[in-house]
Amino acid sequence: MITLLTDFGSPDYFVPAVKGVILSLHPQANLVDLTHEIPAQDVRAAAFTLGACYQTFPSGTIHLAVVDPGVGSARRAIVVEAGKQFFVGPDNGLFSFVYARETAVQVFHANREDYFRQPVSPTFHGRDVFAPLAAWLAKGIALEDMGVKIYDYVRFTLPAPQTVNDHIIGEVIHVDRFGNCITNLTPNELSLEQVTALTRLRLAGRDVQRFGRHFAESPNAQELFAYIGSAGYWEIALWQDSAASKLQVGRGAAIQLWR
Amino acid sequence: MITLLTDFGSPDYFVPAVKGVILSLHPQANLVDLTHEIPAQDVRAAAFTLGACYQTFPSGTIHLAVVDPGVGSARRAIVVEAGKQFFVGPDNGLFSFVYARETAVQVFHANREDYFRQPVSPTFHGRDVFAPLAAWLAKGIALEDMGVKIYDYVRFTLPAPQTVNDHIIGEVIHVDRFGNCITNLTPNELSLEQVTALTRLRLAGRDVQRFGRHFAESPNAQELFAYIGSAGYWEIALWQDSAASKLQVGRGAAIQLWR
Amino acid sequence: MITLLTDFGSPDYFVPAVKGVILSLHPQANLVDLTHEIPAQDVRAAAFTLGACYQTFPSGTIHLAVVDPGVGSARRAIVVEAGKQFFVGPDNGLFSFVYARETAVQVFHANREDYFRQPVSPTFHGRDVFAPLAAWLAKGIALEDMGVKIYDYVRFTLPAPQTVNDHIIGEVIHVDRFGNCITNLTPNELSLEQVTALTRLRLAGRDVQRFGRHFAESPNAQELFAYIGSAGYWEIALWQDSAASKLQVGRGAAIQLWR
Repeated sequence: MITLLTDFGSPDYFVPAVKGVILSLHPQANLVDLTHEIPAQDVRAAAFTLGACYQTFPSGTIHLAVVDPGVGSARRAIVVEAGKQFFVGPDNGLFSFVYARETAVQVFHANREDYFRQPVSPTFHGRDVFAPLAAWLAKGIALEDMGVKIYDYVRFTLPAPQTVNDHIIGEVIHVDRFGNCITNLTPNELSLEQVTALTRLRLAGRDVQRFGRHFAESPNAQELFAYIGSAGYWEIALWQDSAASKLQVGRGAAIQLWR
Repeated sequence: MITLLTDFGSPDYFVPAVKGVILSLHPQANLVDLTHEIPAQDVRAAAFTLGACYQTFPSGTIHLAVVDPGVGSARRAIVVEAGKQFFVGPDNGLFSFVYARETAVQVFHANREDYFRQPVSPTFHGRDVFAPLAAWLAKGIALEDMGVKIYDYVRFTLPAPQTVNDHIIGEVIHVDRFGNCITNLTPNELSLEQVTALTRLRLAGRDVQRFGRHFAESPNAQELFAYIGSAGYWEIALWQDSAASKLQVGRGAAIQLWR
Repeated sequence: MITLLTDFGSPDYFVPAVKGVILSLHPQANLVDLTHEIPAQDVRAAAFTLGACYQTFPSGTIHLAVVDPGVGSARRAIVVEAGKQFFVGPDNGLFSFVYARETAVQVFHANREDYFRQPVSPTFHGRDVFAPLAAWLAKGIALEDMGVKIYDYVRFTLPAPQTVNDHIIGEVIHVDRFGNCITNLTPNELSLEQVTALTRLRLAGRDVQRFGRHFAESPNAQELFAYIGSAGYWEIALWQDSAASKLQVGRGAAIQLWR
């Protein structure tokens, strides 16, 4: 089983070519499209998206992820084993959520070019480097045989909530396509049971007016509504509207929490 | 074989998470994407789309459909057997076309929580309720074992054409992405052979100028053109233009037919 | 293995119905979505896209391609064997790149209606003609049994670069979704090693300022940048901008090359 996550979009030949290369090497591969609509070159959005779903997949799944602004440059190709799953892609932080969550992480710089498709196009490593690596992994080649183990792989600093005086400072780590703002606050910082009349959550100078379990509890589109989303984080949303657009905030925006 | 029809869109982790949950429970499942681009929360559009294609699938297919504005509320999760196929989703009318068309319909309220993924997120039953139900069905669990049989399941009243004096009144039941207006008139109301110089079909105060078998018979983009579409209904369209936008009509718009 | 390439888009029942028909006839078929987002009725874009990826697929792959402005008219349905792969679709030039590249091409007019789904909708041959043909091919029916061999199949004249006095005239053969202009010039006309200070490449009255191996070598969004793309052609692009929009050029635009 090989999953595919890219920013290639749908209309072009990029996704088909990746699939063709995998299936030529390994016709029995079970390809599963995750998404090809990651915003172009947005490695952090890709990292969040993969981080929010990879754990639902079975042991042994190979996740091929290609969001690769540095294609053609010196950035390394890596193959990773973590949490009994495998990850193939550029060494640009794409697997940061995986690294943060899994304990036994092994990362190899895949530099054995006999596992690449030749000649390697300098603009399309998805087809010529990462697709064949994923196929060879699925065929049983060991990570060790694909290159050398590395320890200095690239990972983002995933922002942790900070306690400052009487409140906690967090931030928006992702905005989904509905404009819901996903924060780095979890039930560890605030459980639904801990919410009281004194609890305040502020984003972009605005107070959240309501806390709840799900959208059906949100009374109208004017009130900011906070709930623990399905990725396990507090999210701030507007009913049938984009909170991100309304508040003009994006990834990295600070939030304050008084419990 | 499990098909997937949702309004989750492509860029986010929602579709991947549903796939991961199914494949973790049942790695041999053959997942078939129908569409994830149903307009957000548009249960009727989902019902039409599923209704227009489910019969092309083989016996035993499991259709997982999640367009679920009431997620987190008291609406029931259901598993359905109809027409030798299976359907899993919220009890909100999503399977109305199936109920209308099939004779032997069995609907169960799936309330056995041991078949859910725990803990159940109040905002993402697609992942935590419906995906595991579909996987367990595919693994051979009987519908009876998942809950209790119900008879008061939710179904839309599908509008039937009405004869009024000298004409028939019907309505637009779906607008596709090209702006073609799909009506509830079928060859039962008017076959192509029955069309004469006196036949009139009116939508939004405008007469259809031309009846034909397919678009290649439509001379220009100014004339409203009616044909029996591939879903078996009369459709009203403009060549390379959106009839719905031009006439400013949508689902529910009335049409009149004089034969 | 059956791949699918269409202009049906995602929201409607068209793609699902095609899949259902194939899987009903041949439940073991391994369906691979290439794309369903070819611009509506753009046969040339479909031909380019298929041409740029089909060779990555294994021998025996069946490519089902439906971009079919003439559906319902007299245009023929064809099944093709070329390069040890198979192609099913309308006879409208969709396979021109395949014909141009492969030596042993066999084309059959599929006119044996017992291999169609009955009744055939005049507006949806994708479901009723091409899908069943692909399924029967996958089940082992020979092309000869589906119809008669033809030699006058439709193919586009694929423009070849012309030498005129001191320079070469080529043209833009495709614009991808990023606005990159893919030309018909290949390393045969100009290899990267041949580029000198005197090399000029002009598009829409503008000189390309920079030649390189990949985007990371492009310094800014103002300079036109040329590189040999992953489809094997010289492409002209702007870093993080649309060259096609900026220069207001499209498919067919002339380019001049002085080596």
